[in-house]
Amino acid sequence: MSERSDTPLLDAISIPADLRKLEPEQLREVADELRQDMVRSVSTTGGHLGAGLGVVELTVAIHYVFDTPRDKLIWDVGHQCYPHKILTGRRDRMGSLRQGGGLSGFTNRKESEYDPFGAAHSSTSISAGLGYAVARDLRGEDFNVVSVIGDGALSAGMAYEAMNNAGAERSRMIVILNDNDMSIAPPVGAMSAYLSQLISSKPYLSVRHLGKEIASKFPRAFERAAQRAEEYARGMLTGGTLFEEMGFYYLGPIDGHNMDHLLPVLRNARDGAYEGPILIHVVTQKGKGYKPAEESADKYHGVAKFDVVTGKQAKAPAAAPSYTGIFAKGLIAEAKADERVVSVTAAMPGGTGLDKFAELFPERSFDVGIAEQHAVTFAAGMACEGLKPFCAIYSTFLQRAYDQVVHDVAIQSLPVRFAIDRAGMVGADGVTHQGSYDITYLGCLPGFVLMAAADEAELMHMVATAAQIDDRPSAFRYPRGESTGLVELPERGTPLEIGKGRILKQGSKVAVLSYGTRLGEALAAAEMLGARGLTTTVADARFAKPLDHDLIRRLASEHEVLITVEEGAVGGFGSHVGNYLAWEGLLDGPLKFRPLCLPDFFIDHDKPEKQYELAGLTAKQIASKALQALGYNEPDAAGLRA
Amino acid sequence: MSERSDTPLLDAISIPADLRKLEPEQLREVADELRQDMVRSVSTTGGHLGAGLGVVELTVAIHYVFDTPRDKLIWDVGHQCYPHKILTGRRDRMGSLRQGGGLSGFTNRKESEYDPFGAAHSSTSISAGLGYAVARDLRGEDFNVVSVIGDGALSAGMAYEAMNNAGAERSRMIVILNDNDMSIAPPVGAMSAYLSQLISSKPYLSVRHLGKEIASKFPRAFERAAQRAEEYARGMLTGGTLFEEMGFYYLGPIDGHNMDHLLPVLRNARDGAYEGPILIHVVTQKGKGYKPAEESADKYHGVAKFDVVTGKQAKAPAAAPSYTGIFAKGLIAEAKADERVVSVTAAMPGGTGLDKFAELFPERSFDVGIAEQHAVTFAAGMACEGLKPFCAIYSTFLQRAYDQVVHDVAIQSLPVRFAIDRAGMVGADGVTHQGSYDITYLGCLPGFVLMAAADEAELMHMVATAAQIDDRPSAFRYPRGESTGLVELPERGTPLEIGKGRILKQGSKVAVLSYGTRLGEALAAAEMLGARGLTTTVADARFAKPLDHDLIRRLASEHEVLITVEEGAVGGFGSHVGNYLAWEGLLDGPLKFRPLCLPDFFIDHDKPEKQYELAGLTAKQIASKALQALGYNEPDAAGLRA
Repeated sequence: MSERSDTPLLDAISIPADLRKLEPEQLREVADELRQDMVRSVSTTGGHLGAGLGVVELTVAIHYVFDTPRDKLIWDVGHQCYPHKILTGRRDRMGSLRQGGGLSGFTNRKESEYDPFGAAHSSTSISAGLGYAVARDLRGEDFNVVSVIGDGALSAGMAYEAMNNAGAERSRMIVILNDNDMSIAPPVGAMSAYLSQLISSKPYLSVRHLGKEIASKFPRAFERAAQRAEEYARGMLTGGTLFEEMGFYYLGPIDGHNMDHLLPVLRNARDGAYEGPILIHVVTQKGKGYKPAEESADKYHGVAKFDVVTGKQAKAPAAAPSYTGIFAKGLIAEAKADERVVSVTAAMPGGTGLDKFAELFPERSFDVGIAEQHAVTFAAGMACEGLKPFCAIYSTFLQRAYDQVVHDVAIQSLPVRFAIDRAGMVGADGVTHQGSYDITYLGCLPGFVLMAAADEAELMHMVATAAQIDDRPSAFRYPRGESTGLVELPERGTPLEIGKGRILKQGSKVAVLSYGTRLGEALAAAEMLGARGLTTTVADARFAKPLDHDLIRRLASEHEVLITVEEGAVGGFGSHVGNYLAWEGLLDGPLKFRPLCLPDFFIDHDKPEKQYELAGLTAKQIASKALQALGYNEPDAAGLRA
Repeated sequence: MSERSDTPLLDAISIPADLRKLEPEQLREVADELRQDMVRSVSTTGGHLGAGLGVVELTVAIHYVFDTPRDKLIWDVGHQCYPHKILTGRRDRMGSLRQGGGLSGFTNRKESEYDPFGAAHSSTSISAGLGYAVARDLRGEDFNVVSVIGDGALSAGMAYEAMNNAGAERSRMIVILNDNDMSIAPPVGAMSAYLSQLISSKPYLSVRHLGKEIASKFPRAFERAAQRAEEYARGMLTGGTLFEEMGFYYLGPIDGHNMDHLLPVLRNARDGAYEGPILIHVVTQKGKGYKPAEESADKYHGVAKFDVVTGKQAKAPAAAPSYTGIFAKGLIAEAKADERVVSVTAAMPGGTGLDKFAELFPERSFDVGIAEQHAVTFAAGMACEGLKPFCAIYSTFLQRAYDQVVHDVAIQSLPVRFAIDRAGMVGADGVTHQGSYDITYLGCLPGFVLMAAADEAELMHMVATAAQIDDRPSAFRYPRGESTGLVELPERGTPLEIGKGRILKQGSKVAVLSYGTRLGEALAAAEMLGARGLTTTVADARFAKPLDHDLIRRLASEHEVLITVEEGAVGGFGSHVGNYLAWEGLLDGPLKFRPLCLPDFFIDHDKPEKQYELAGLTAKQIASKALQALGYNEPDAAGLRA
């Protein structure tokens, strides 16, 4: 090559074993090259940038000190794993990140042996790590387990449950608390305040301190009682007592960008004979080392493609406002009219649009941290006292609060409103973030009112409808991304009649009953069928619960084919319609009923259009299904069955 | 009345306002009468005894000091609320406890204005209380909020999430930690060890201390910085720093059976101007004051009717071993044959039968505390490392870990085995414990193998099948209570062919495809139909996923009526069968398909037989449904539709 590479050290590293051949003094340079490489790579693909920038030195240090993949390195959430991917044999594929068939934006067991546990939801790494550690002990093996968890992820109960268990199990594992005082949004909660206090109350451990004292903290043999006494005394002096009280050996805080500090601490944790969990408190800066990221409020948490020099993101001009923004607009309109309206988010004020609500109604806006379980029951408590809580949680994250939805909300018939964002296919975030199950897991709960918006005006109306429903729980779902841009938006929504759908187009041969934003595809399918002489009725169910029995009966009795369409898994809207039809005997005759839903396999990251095609939910596939039902010789629509 | 009552003070109390007319010196006597009354009452009904006995004094003291129902008293789990029920206008109905139409065994909003938040699952009370407190502040009201939570419940992440938020919200609320070092089973986890250390490291606060010092801790005005410094210093001295670090004002420990200690502390917490959450650490003894309970290992956690003098419980001799016991037997057989088999329970070793497993394989048995989220991902980690984890969790509690099942197990296709106990109707525990949703919420997840045992031999086989499935997640469900007693039990199960059902009886007119233990009713329904000349095929699906397509096709094409039967909500087995039939065009013809599942309303506590009838799942109702489908003039089976 005639041109000299500006990443000569990195170029020589294809797997961590190559990294481990270098001298410690070279790691600073490796980190710099790695950071530069990642910025360049993400600038062409978009993705999560800030989190990865913050852990460049930590990633290098861990892979240098530990014998990955034999030692298990488990990244919490996984969106900070880009430097890790680059160091673990995936550098040449970074250009395919988050694209169909390309690398996942998170850790993924299918992708690499260096990803021992996939993640994309937060706070799972200590549990998974403890599982590895306990299994190792049982099987008589001796590898190390390192779980890296952010301070934001510590607000989740799951992390606490894992620490509570790890502190008692006394299995050897290392938890690295990556404290950047920032998850996606600014941190909330008492734990966050506690961590800030820890950091501000004492200086970083000095190099001298690291060399001498820490080593002495890990003697090979240790009298148990003396050990506990010592732990207690040290906790008092150094802070970290909360973690000590949970049974962890606390070390820190450490400067997470300083190799001279990271290496000896990690080595000591690796080589020490301490029999139990160790927590290393590492302080990092999200977006570190790339000016535009450092200076941005969200530290370039998630970015589009961007210009490396200016940091300017090449976000395509939006054709229409996002559904998220429409939700915020609708909710703000309701909140202006009714002071009982309050909002709850679990650490996603920006992602859910509730940041806009909070600007106008700071005292009526609650960010509880990454704590969906608490969010829901907290909202239930507020509902008891006459407030009108709207819990805005992504479909995939509401799974975290399923029992609270059942036990605290549904059984008590409390009017908590669930604004379910990211319902359906989510594109580049992929399999872990698909909002596939909410219709199913909520649909089986008695008393719930379930809605799905077909367009942005409908979403405004559904927000208004939910605000008005004050005797039972309700939920409305809407997808990620831009709204249709095709309908006029009201200033405020108008409540819909509960359990009533609408007919958009009347035909006589085929009926398509759509639930949610696939309505556009249903209408397009109707056009295609109409062009073949098969006049098609298209209806928007609006409600999956209660069902519009009159509408369904009419569609079933006046057409040869009835197709339901939804962006959700089996057991949801189509199943409810099917059960009603069956119970009423409406399937006893010649009606050809075809419920279309998401297929029974997991759908990876890709462009949404591709995902819809894989799911068999495009206009063409809907039309094709109708034709098949009518005996036409049509190719089978992809993905309809497992 | 000629006979003098032995509960004269209690007789004069119909609501807490009556209690508040008494002098403090009389409360000891009230507590004694209350305890006596409760023992007498539960001796005739059965129910939860130990927990209520432990909080008799606390219940009296809270209702005496606080202005219930204006002040909100929220009991966590709610099984300790019998003394509370007696004091709050429900004493005359205690004889109806846990019976159809009678009082619930838990707190219940429908039952009394003194139950501001219903509970039966653990660890919800801080979240609900904070919701009340925040709503109160927003609405400018001024009542008190008191949440009473047990030490066992503190192992759940939800309680931590709530404390993390409460500690930051700075809303006035009182959390009483009822520390009896015992939930249902002996406590586990680091938090439990921490609490024990707190208690053992310092004496109870003395009366003098209470009178002087505590009052001084609640000055009307307080300089913020000074306050924090003081909190910190005091935390160091008194323990409780973990709670202080979470933003709570910690007081304790207090002797929870001593009125002289309880009253001043509660009064101070009520009257103090401290603006933020207070945690009062109260130490109690489960089963307190009733010798047989005190001396029993489980402190009479849940009892049958019993003799008050001897404590002897009148448990009817079991006709057959419980399904829980069969599961344990099956799992032990697998574990003997394969050392990779390990078990995980979330604080229910006795309830799940895993206590028997733990006796034989202590090192392969894990009780993680009330921490279902962690339990599942911990198991997933163990599965990664080649172990064969069986997670035994009740259907209703597995809801707590739904996201972990989706994100950590299903998406990664890890072979975690879920033993789902208490699936279906649970009788006296009622609505909060019904195992109604697991088929639906697991059925929508790609790749899962889902089984339901029709009898105890089947359960043994399904344990063996799950042990053998090592490339994907599996689950098998079985109900509460006794097994059939009708089939011979093998020493060890034999793996079933995956996705294959079995035909038990061949007919030609009607087909009943059963999933789970309703098979007996399906066979009885077949007899009834046969008696009317309608020969009936009965099949046991065994698997809801993958479905036995051949079997379903055969049943659909060879019969006039196809009925599916399952003890689960809409969206489950019947919906999967319905979707398959629809997709295959098997519903296009004259087949009369009738999916029977649990109805779309909540089913309260009652005898299981009553619950099945309400659900429309008895033999008679199954037969009736078939007759209706065939045009016979049959009365509608109850409860099939909302």
